[in-house]
Amino acid sequence: MLDARTRTADAFDPATVDVAIVANPPGGSLAGLPNLKLVQSLWAGVDRLLADPTLPGDVPLARMVDPMMNDAMAQTALWAVLSLHRAFFAYALHQREHQWQPHAQRRADEVPVAVLGLGQMGTAVAQRLVVNGYPVAGWSARPRSLPGVATHSGDEGLTRVLAGAQIVVNLLPLTPATQGLFNASTFACMRRGASLVNLARGGHVVESDLLAALGSGGLQHAVLDVFCVEPLPPDHPFWSHPQITVLPHVAALTDPRSAAEVVARNVRALRDGRPIEHLVDRARGY
Amino acid sequence: MLDARTRTADAFDPATVDVAIVANPPGGSLAGLPNLKLVQSLWAGVDRLLADPTLPGDVPLARMVDPMMNDAMAQTALWAVLSLHRAFFAYALHQREHQWQPHAQRRADEVPVAVLGLGQMGTAVAQRLVVNGYPVAGWSARPRSLPGVATHSGDEGLTRVLAGAQIVVNLLPLTPATQGLFNASTFACMRRGASLVNLARGGHVVESDLLAALGSGGLQHAVLDVFCVEPLPPDHPFWSHPQITVLPHVAALTDPRSAAEVVARNVRALRDGRPIEHLVDRARGY
Repeated sequence: MLDARTRTADAFDPATVDVAIVANPPGGSLAGLPNLKLVQSLWAGVDRLLADPTLPGDVPLARMVDPMMNDAMAQTALWAVLSLHRAFFAYALHQREHQWQPHAQRRADEVPVAVLGLGQMGTAVAQRLVVNGYPVAGWSARPRSLPGVATHSGDEGLTRVLAGAQIVVNLLPLTPATQGLFNASTFACMRRGASLVNLARGGHVVESDLLAALGSGGLQHAVLDVFCVEPLPPDHPFWSHPQITVLPHVAALTDPRSAAEVVARNVRALRDGRPIEHLVDRARGY
Repeated sequence: MLDARTRTADAFDPATVDVAIVANPPGGSLAGLPNLKLVQSLWAGVDRLLADPTLPGDVPLARMVDPMMNDAMAQTALWAVLSLHRAFFAYALHQREHQWQPHAQRRADEVPVAVLGLGQMGTAVAQRLVVNGYPVAGWSARPRSLPGVATHSGDEGLTRVLAGAQIVVNLLPLTPATQGLFNASTFACMRRGASLVNLARGGHVVESDLLAALGSGGLQHAVLDVFCVEPLPPDHPFWSHPQITVLPHVAALTDPRSAAEVVARNVRALRDGRPIEHLVDRARGY
């Protein structure tokens, strides 16, 4: 078994490696392993792995689906929604100016939230928001149904979901179809003064279009956990923008305690000839 | 009926007033109303009303118990707990320094929370935290039981609850018994690095002791919605303290839509000779 993070040129015989457990390894790390039978990602998103042209095309690739990671994502999304709904980002700015300024208070049922992407994480987020009283609409590429959530799919569904929400939470996988999805034309579909919470991938958002939408008042605020370049460079305009909350890609970290069980289950399944869980469909990209 | 906020010297005949609907009116506002039969507060806490020596002693006084206000309080407490649990206040500081610095991630079940005060609001807060996966202990002056919450009472119970929590949320009424409850000796009972969320009254906290506990590392952070003097004066040290989050007394505002029904119900009850709801026990102070 190979942990690509610690691979060195002469530390092992490539022919002995049958399982590679990886967390966004450098390009080329998985080439030249003739007996590789499984690539197990420690990350939920496999867009960077799939972008590596040396990734063996015929070896099964499994994503991380860690219940604790889903839970962490639901917490982060709920925190962002509560912060936007109850003006807590605004109060933080007021505090810096020693300014006592209450804002009007809305009920949760007056703040419609859209969740884009209804995979494991999007589902966990949508359910958590419903439990906490928010009206939730969901969008996914293929039709899905989810109790308590108004689900939509397709291009027309996306326009409808974006137009109906005060807060849009993005949890889509990054694929050629979703690259740059948040751009001037999608921002124009959103309600004036709506907010964006991007917990998926930096490549989903056209950064210059986001800055323009915030500047014009089209969007009110963005909570961003992911960026086109990570770590976000120190001179990037997002850091000091009063309408942007920057998180250092921490919305949901893999929890080693629960993730180890997920990995062990797949390794055992491989050894025993049983089906591998959470296999990636490479044509779909997730 | 009298709305004390708009009372002027000659606008009405005092003898015609039977119900006073008040929101922290100036001292003396309720004196000289010979036929007053009910004082209905629009606020949940009546400590300032009770401190007015001219408040008629023989007129029933009702507190505001507004389900929407309870819900708002639960949202604020949950937001504060999520922010502390997931290091979101730390990330906000890092953002100001353009610093990309992930912190370790804990599960909700690793973050014990104590809720002090199990009245309408404390109960709503405790239940909301349980639903979101936190282990919750509750404390109240008199013994109470609450599903899913480990409840305690009395002095010994208080010490135990404080010692067991990573985050302490205060929702006690302000009475002579709870004035200054958070002082050097209670802070010394708390875990090193624990945090305080005060959503009740400023008088519960000895401000100089809080600053000392934060400075020594005894406490990690305080989220404060209430202060000894409100609005918090512009030169107060809390505003610029990196370990203090200041909110301008907005944790839970009375929602006029739902509160109006509560008031109307009590006025109708008075007219019809039925029991008034949410009467204050003046000896207890809430």
